[in-house]
Amino acid sequence: MTTTSTTTYATTIDAIRDAARRIAPHAIRTPVVRCSAISERAGHPLRFKCENFQKVGAFKFRGACNAVFKLSDELARRGVVTHSSGNHAQALALAAKLRGIPAHIVMPRNAPSVKREAVEGYGGIVYPCEPTVADREATADRVVAETGGTLIPPYNHPDVIAGQGTIALEFLEECPDLGAIIVPIGGGGMISGVALAAKAVKPSIAIIAAEPANADDAARSKRAGSIQPIAAATTIADGLRTSLGSLTFPVVRDLVDEVVTVSEDEIVAAMRLVFERAKLVIEPSAAVGVAVALSRRSKAISALQQGTPVGIVLCGGNVDLDALPWSVTPPSGAAAPR
Amino acid sequence: MTTTSTTTYATTIDAIRDAARRIAPHAIRTPVVRCSAISERAGHPLRFKCENFQKVGAFKFRGACNAVFKLSDELARRGVVTHSSGNHAQALALAAKLRGIPAHIVMPRNAPSVKREAVEGYGGIVYPCEPTVADREATADRVVAETGGTLIPPYNHPDVIAGQGTIALEFLEECPDLGAIIVPIGGGGMISGVALAAKAVKPSIAIIAAEPANADDAARSKRAGSIQPIAAATTIADGLRTSLGSLTFPVVRDLVDEVVTVSEDEIVAAMRLVFERAKLVIEPSAAVGVAVALSRRSKAISALQQGTPVGIVLCGGNVDLDALPWSVTPPSGAAAPR
Repeated sequence: MTTTSTTTYATTIDAIRDAARRIAPHAIRTPVVRCSAISERAGHPLRFKCENFQKVGAFKFRGACNAVFKLSDELARRGVVTHSSGNHAQALALAAKLRGIPAHIVMPRNAPSVKREAVEGYGGIVYPCEPTVADREATADRVVAETGGTLIPPYNHPDVIAGQGTIALEFLEECPDLGAIIVPIGGGGMISGVALAAKAVKPSIAIIAAEPANADDAARSKRAGSIQPIAAATTIADGLRTSLGSLTFPVVRDLVDEVVTVSEDEIVAAMRLVFERAKLVIEPSAAVGVAVALSRRSKAISALQQGTPVGIVLCGGNVDLDALPWSVTPPSGAAAPR
Repeated sequence: MTTTSTTTYATTIDAIRDAARRIAPHAIRTPVVRCSAISERAGHPLRFKCENFQKVGAFKFRGACNAVFKLSDELARRGVVTHSSGNHAQALALAAKLRGIPAHIVMPRNAPSVKREAVEGYGGIVYPCEPTVADREATADRVVAETGGTLIPPYNHPDVIAGQGTIALEFLEECPDLGAIIVPIGGGGMISGVALAAKAVKPSIAIIAAEPANADDAARSKRAGSIQPIAAATTIADGLRTSLGSLTFPVVRDLVDEVVTVSEDEIVAAMRLVFERAKLVIEPSAAVGVAVALSRRSKAISALQQGTPVGIVLCGGNVDLDALPWSVTPPSGAAAPR
């Protein structure tokens, strides 16, 4: 049943299992960590899947790695291209380096120099563009035309989604008793892969999207039954500012049980709690999932039998240690905690 | 051979194995984590034993738990007593709570309120004293006399040392190929337990003490062949300001291969690197071990064959997140990084 229905989506459990085999020599099989203090506050035993320990410090390496290593030798030789200034850019640069092919990364001129240096540190070739969607896409198109490279977008791509789905395979192998998995949602690549994999392996599991209230396009899209993109999301969870894509929306619509939104205050408090009690360095986007668990507002989790473990994907740990959100005035442009 | 010689020390491999069985229902079997970026800089594959994930956020829970659960029912009923404001106080309070007995904690009046609250949060009864060694000990003696409780000091006690030794048993079970273990050294309880256990299990292993240059009593004591206490250590690694004790010095003298000291700057840089690349929240004392690996000044490690893994005990993660050392001016009283 599950297999039949999932074949209509961006990827399949078989493709996700293939991805797991493909990335195994390169990606870290990240540990699952517990924290009784945070579990107590959430009212359920929590299990943290530590993608902050993943290569480049974020789950994005899985999808990029799968996409890069799935290319034919002939295509691969011409390299890969993306436009991103975030974790996907670093992930693609590292995956390309591991395969020995060029990575062409289009990045806005005004991106922080630390992000540019990180990409270059992994051997990526940076193409500065104007900080507009139009110029970013035009520049990427030009680079693709010039190099013959393959465009690997950050989430709206079957191989990227399949790569992210490997998180769920590992998570359920280590914790088969999970009653739910909470996954932060931005473009929806991670939750699409996780939902397709997890529901194929364990159809009874609940998949809960964790979203900043300040970037609630997934919540609104699911309610409306169509993609409701967000114009300008001003959340501290910078990895979750993007909107759902054509390949991820159908999965979110059909296989994600619930979208729970949290405030900026809740995100910062959850992030601090994870540092303080779980002793893990996470980025704000990862804290969004923890904030959902702490909010106790998920109906799917409330419906679980007492004592049923709940998984949370800590999606990344790339955070500016000189500007942790509880110790600084938010820079202009970022959302002020309310 | 090893068994015969170790019987003259504070504890034995048999007592450490007993401790492992005793604390197993209560303590966390902490994971071992890797980080390729830090390993590259150290020149050896590093393995981090994450005692920052231990109950109360530090290895101290192992020793306290062993000491508390080893008491006879009759003795236990009267409770336990210690004078400490650090991790040992919280560890003893929690261990006593788990056994359902009182913990009487003597603590200087000027200890940060957060430390007092942490102990009380675990059910400990706090006895304020003047911030002098004389009044601390006098108060503890009075509490022992009044309650009939058993004094459990933070490190100079056979059961505490045996409890800390369980770190090495777990570490070598998970990583039998370790060529060396780096252990931060303060009073010497942890390294005594680790050295006794590790050398019994794997006699060829090197045990390296990691010490702040600003609190180098272990280095000087080992050179002198007798305990050389330090008057006032001004290191950021607050867990390592204490000097060796009568039970720990003989182990350090005979079984620790080398003491390597590091500067305050090296400690802060190592701590930041662990946050940034390993995504782990650690306290400065834990960073001291990492700083030793990064310094490449250990002769014992340099003598290892290329590619031999080196273990580091990340002893704890209790750090003030509002005053991370790279983001604040050091408070007066703490050592300024040089």
